[in-house]
Amino acid sequence: MTAARLASLASQLPALRLLTDPSDLEHYGRDWTRRWTPAPLAIALPASVEEAQAVVRWAYENDVALVPSGGRTGLSGGAVAAHGELVLSLERMNKVLAFDAVDRTLTVQAGMTLQAVHDAAGQHGLIYPVDFAARGSCAIGGNIATNAGGIRVIRYGNTREWIAGLTVINGKGELLHLNRGLIKNSSGYDLRHLIIGSEGTLGVVVEATLKLTDPPAPSQVMLLALPDMTALMHVFALFRARLSLQAFEFFTDVALRHVLAHGAQRAIDGDHPYYVVTEFDADEEAALAVFEQGMEQGWIHDGVMAQSDAQAAALWRLREGITESLASHKPYKNDISLRISALPGFLAEIQALLGEEYPNMDVVWFGHIGDGNLHINVLKPATLSDADFIAQCDVVTKHLAQTLQQHGGSISAEHGIGLVKKPYLESTRTAEEIALMRGVKQVFDPKGLLNPGKVF
Amino acid sequence: MTAARLASLASQLPALRLLTDPSDLEHYGRDWTRRWTPAPLAIALPASVEEAQAVVRWAYENDVALVPSGGRTGLSGGAVAAHGELVLSLERMNKVLAFDAVDRTLTVQAGMTLQAVHDAAGQHGLIYPVDFAARGSCAIGGNIATNAGGIRVIRYGNTREWIAGLTVINGKGELLHLNRGLIKNSSGYDLRHLIIGSEGTLGVVVEATLKLTDPPAPSQVMLLALPDMTALMHVFALFRARLSLQAFEFFTDVALRHVLAHGAQRAIDGDHPYYVVTEFDADEEAALAVFEQGMEQGWIHDGVMAQSDAQAAALWRLREGITESLASHKPYKNDISLRISALPGFLAEIQALLGEEYPNMDVVWFGHIGDGNLHINVLKPATLSDADFIAQCDVVTKHLAQTLQQHGGSISAEHGIGLVKKPYLESTRTAEEIALMRGVKQVFDPKGLLNPGKVF
Repeated sequence: MTAARLASLASQLPALRLLTDPSDLEHYGRDWTRRWTPAPLAIALPASVEEAQAVVRWAYENDVALVPSGGRTGLSGGAVAAHGELVLSLERMNKVLAFDAVDRTLTVQAGMTLQAVHDAAGQHGLIYPVDFAARGSCAIGGNIATNAGGIRVIRYGNTREWIAGLTVINGKGELLHLNRGLIKNSSGYDLRHLIIGSEGTLGVVVEATLKLTDPPAPSQVMLLALPDMTALMHVFALFRARLSLQAFEFFTDVALRHVLAHGAQRAIDGDHPYYVVTEFDADEEAALAVFEQGMEQGWIHDGVMAQSDAQAAALWRLREGITESLASHKPYKNDISLRISALPGFLAEIQALLGEEYPNMDVVWFGHIGDGNLHINVLKPATLSDADFIAQCDVVTKHLAQTLQQHGGSISAEHGIGLVKKPYLESTRTAEEIALMRGVKQVFDPKGLLNPGKVF
Repeated sequence: MTAARLASLASQLPALRLLTDPSDLEHYGRDWTRRWTPAPLAIALPASVEEAQAVVRWAYENDVALVPSGGRTGLSGGAVAAHGELVLSLERMNKVLAFDAVDRTLTVQAGMTLQAVHDAAGQHGLIYPVDFAARGSCAIGGNIATNAGGIRVIRYGNTREWIAGLTVINGKGELLHLNRGLIKNSSGYDLRHLIIGSEGTLGVVVEATLKLTDPPAPSQVMLLALPDMTALMHVFALFRARLSLQAFEFFTDVALRHVLAHGAQRAIDGDHPYYVVTEFDADEEAALAVFEQGMEQGWIHDGVMAQSDAQAAALWRLREGITESLASHKPYKNDISLRISALPGFLAEIQALLGEEYPNMDVVWFGHIGDGNLHINVLKPATLSDADFIAQCDVVTKHLAQTLQQHGGSISAEHGIGLVKKPYLESTRTAEEIALMRGVKQVFDPKGLLNPGKVF
């Protein structure tokens, strides 16, 4: 069966680069999750839109499931191919297609890394402002598929805000040019926004026209040490009201311990329960005034402001190095979102729950307070098997999802649903919404061949 | 039949306010277009979400078509009820439901006017930044249905950017709470964005959670007189690069003539082909420097900067009074959009076309250069009948749509498709896209009862 399918694909598209080595199947068959054993049919690496479209058409005619694949840095299993799917990797489609100075747009192929997009924008004195730690390896197409957020959302919003146009191949192999770079376009349903965040289940993003903007004003980076979450909420309100924030990121003492053990440099002495890395438009006088106000109120216990780019980078590393520093502990990742106003009530409940349910596990908190987005990483104790650990975490996640639902939150802020969060989708979306999503999926992908089993 | 249907509705919902007077049918059965004769079944004015939902359920069970209705200031016939539909007016649902200072959101019923939304935000020291001339009578629900743009898009984007949550009743009468005010939410398809701009064909927006923001820095308003469109594009590039623009609006000498005849005050002497009203963060020195540079280059022929709020309002009236000043001429309105970079090529072609096809008609141009959005209003000569005028305009619109298509533009920038633009939808959206839209419509409104005949 497998051999016959591959022979059919190879004969229909003799120029297509096709990988079938076991090491390639393993490499391209998984993302940053390590829960599933990769088992793709093969890896197709088209070099052009036409070739990608031909692959999707072939898959449609031959009922072959496809997994669209970018940088595979996803944390929800959205790019995992564990059931004989053909992986459609955009890796070779990684070029800038056009820059327009009047429109201030950059049109790129979907396989470009976020870092390469940043570099290309920078060559024209502009920025693409979405940013996060995986920038060097994640692909812009994958960013679009999950509506990636990151560390600058408080200033610039999510990926969604920066997409002026998308070229997409739907499940029937039809090529769609959605919105075509227009600023205003009230001509029927905005299918572009339907594709953004759909995790490859409605179409394969092959090209994107990205909006660019002016670089921000020169900025300051500050690290703060705080006594508790209530103080953190006060400091956020104070800083947001008085400074022009670009980022406001928090993490706990446990996170700091891991990132220091991983080679980062300590910047504040002593032990403090919470830390914040914040970046704002440079206004030293205002910054010092709000810092002092926070100290006087007892909300801030210590702090340091970067005096050089190198020191700013060192402070940022304390926050951005966390995910990597935890990787060897096989963390169970929760990426949740609430209205900011709902955070305190939710946190009180959830910290009690985690204390009860995970008394012996390291729980690492960090995230984006200004976006209502918390990352809760539970680390696997060395004594526990992978399977037992995941089973135990799944039980707790059920409670977490229930608590989230009561507070109006979402089980996925920026990682997507993929395979990992699929059992909890019902806590965030109602049965009616899920039925509508399934209906929409049917319209775009009538045979259900695009990333099957993901999201729902 | 009509009587039986009304009796059924009245008996099922005895508390529902229901209007059937001929004057009410005429008033609520049309929008600002005057091309169709209103002929609704009746006008239902629910006072609550529950009552609105009950009306939609009744319509679903009894196969009665519905026209959702806000301020009916639309210019594309999207709120016209000319075929025995039940008008579902949100007029009585016009209250603020909640303000949250931490989230900086305002939750409102869909029947609130834009002006009332502005006022409610202002009471908390914040702004809802979408703005346009119909603010006093248009409803926020209608703004959402067309993804309304307006005069501040260059700074703040369209309505879409400011919607944190929507409460919607779909065609089956199901109540959907979409996105619920979250900043980040990557949990399946973003149905909120599908509803925005869908012109009441997928669901009835009954409540919305709007994002608010800080008021802008104090601003300056300037009126410029310009020799031609090329100069206008140069001045736009210059101003955008050097000033922090809030608005950049243009109009022609013909538009000025009408608005002056309608009572506005002349602010610049002499005759000039083009005018710009621009507003930017106050930086008088920078403003005068770029103004002088524009004069030296010959791109600007004259200009005036407002010295008081009253003068700023008078300059704005020259732009904002245009639509009202044309109303008695029964204009045929085109609301088109292109990438900014495509404007010069398009304009050269289209001005030649209009000169050929409309040699004897007044054509009034105005719009939002910074958004690539042009409004082309053709005025009806007194000697021509309404029917002949529209027939003639429809012919020209076909050419216009073809030219737009060649330049990658959209037949509707911010007015929607409604009934007026329906014949030209194919110039902006491909057959595949329209088939997908029809499929989505079928999912949300399986009986096709929501605003039937609009968009497609």
